[in-house]
Amino acid sequence: MTPERLQRITATLDKRQPDLTVLTDEVYKPHNLAAIARTCDAVGIPDIHVVWPRDRYRLRTAATAGSAEWVNVHTHANIEGAIQQFQQQGYKVVAAHLTDDAIDYRNYDFTQPTALLMGTEREGVSAVAAGLCDHHLVIPMHGMVESFNVSVAAAIMLNEAQYQRQRAGLYDQPRLPEAHYQRLLFEWSQP
Amino acid sequence: MTPERLQRITATLDKRQPDLTVLTDEVYKPHNLAAIARTCDAVGIPDIHVVWPRDRYRLRTAATAGSAEWVNVHTHANIEGAIQQFQQQGYKVVAAHLTDDAIDYRNYDFTQPTALLMGTEREGVSAVAAGLCDHHLVIPMHGMVESFNVSVAAAIMLNEAQYQRQRAGLYDQPRLPEAHYQRLLFEWSQP
Ligand SMILES: C[S@@+](CC[C@H](N)C(=O)[O-])C[C@H]1O[C@@H](n2cnc3c(N)ncnc32)[C@H](O)[C@@H]1O
Ligand SMILES: C[S@@+](CC[C@H](N)C(=O)[O-])C[C@H]1O[C@@H](n2cnc3c(N)ncnc32)[C@H](O)[C@@H]1O
Repeated sequence: MTPERLQRITATLDKRQPDLTVLTDEVYKPHNLAAIARTCDAVGIPDIHVVWPRDRYRLRTAATAGSAEWVNVHTHANIEGAIQQFQQQGYKVVAAHLTDDAIDYRNYDFTQPTALLMGTEREGVSAVAAGLCDHHLVIPMHGMVESFNVSVAAAIMLNEAQYQRQRAGLYDQPRLPEAHYQRLLFEWSQP
Repeated sequence: MTPERLQRITATLDKRQPDLTVLTDEVYKPHNLAAIARTCDAVGIPDIHVVWPRDRYRLRTAATAGSAEWVNVHTHANIEGAIQQFQQQGYKVVAAHLTDDAIDYRNYDFTQPTALLMGTEREGVSAVAAGLCDHHLVIPMHGMVESFNVSVAAAIMLNEAQYQRQRAGLYDQPRLPEAHYQRLLFEWSQP
């Protein structure tokens, strides 16, 4: 490994945000999951959580999402369990969801411990999941089509989260717990 | 057509921004072009401009991008001609391009007549195109991967353009030339 490579790894680990994550509710298209994982890496999200659809896409999807080698992908059996687990750990779970009582995503405080829930390509966030979330967030739209592509919607919200956290100084010093930091440093330094 | 449908059509046309567009430089994956067209519709961009890659993806790509029936797709033979045509019309042509002299996209004034140039999936913006553009814009990143997916990068920048134009009142009254407005109203009202 070159010194430049090691420096890039530590610079990245120094900015990782352990209290920001994405939870996908049966998002199944490999290119969407891959784009979401890539955006998570860029804004400093170390782990993402997925509930797989109960169908044939399962394996293909798992393979692609895993190819984003800088973001750990955790799977959950069902969305209710995943949401409740985050809430018990003190996270807000906020759904990107186009409902009447949704708030403009720029008015949500992303410096709080947050899991951003993204809905599946066709049907969006399930009613059960929507009911369990702390807030619904919407990105205002001005066109004929009713929604953004899911990886696009995730990116717009996560980029806002990044700016808020930057302004709050959350990228200014390392935030990963020491053991987690050292484990990733070891893994990423392997040839 | 229902009255609700007609109302949605006129509400959309009332917000179209004729002086904002996207120019893609050999972006070839159909799902990326489709996601870009969908985002353009959402922020009120009526027309997009594409330079097709010189390869077998040509037809498939054309089909998909056209499926975004609310955004007109114009093709150009080469990127130099397209850039110069916009500049002659008084547009700034700004490349989403990760160079050292690129400015943070939030510091660019998107209320000006602007064509946003997006680079191809693998190689990015060509050297020739980069040299002709008025500015290079960058979205800051904090991870290991060096770039966003192209449709994600376009969406982040266009969403910023939307907010700037909203603050400037550019969505408050119709901006399409009357003949253009009437032509789209007619086309969109067909069953
Ligand atoms: C293609 S959309 C699903 C559309 C579905 N018909 C619906 O109405 O929810 C996939 C996911 O992207 C996110 N999304 C898309 N556009 C959004 C917007 N404007 N605001 C908030 N979330 C959005 C949501 O998480 C949504 O579940
Ligand atoms: C996958 S990227 C191309 C990467 C290519 N290796 C490069 O270095 O340009 C495709 C396009 O997305 C846009 N893009 C991706 N990430 C960007 C960022 N952080 N800032 C500005 N534009 C970006 C650019 O237009 C780029 O040409």
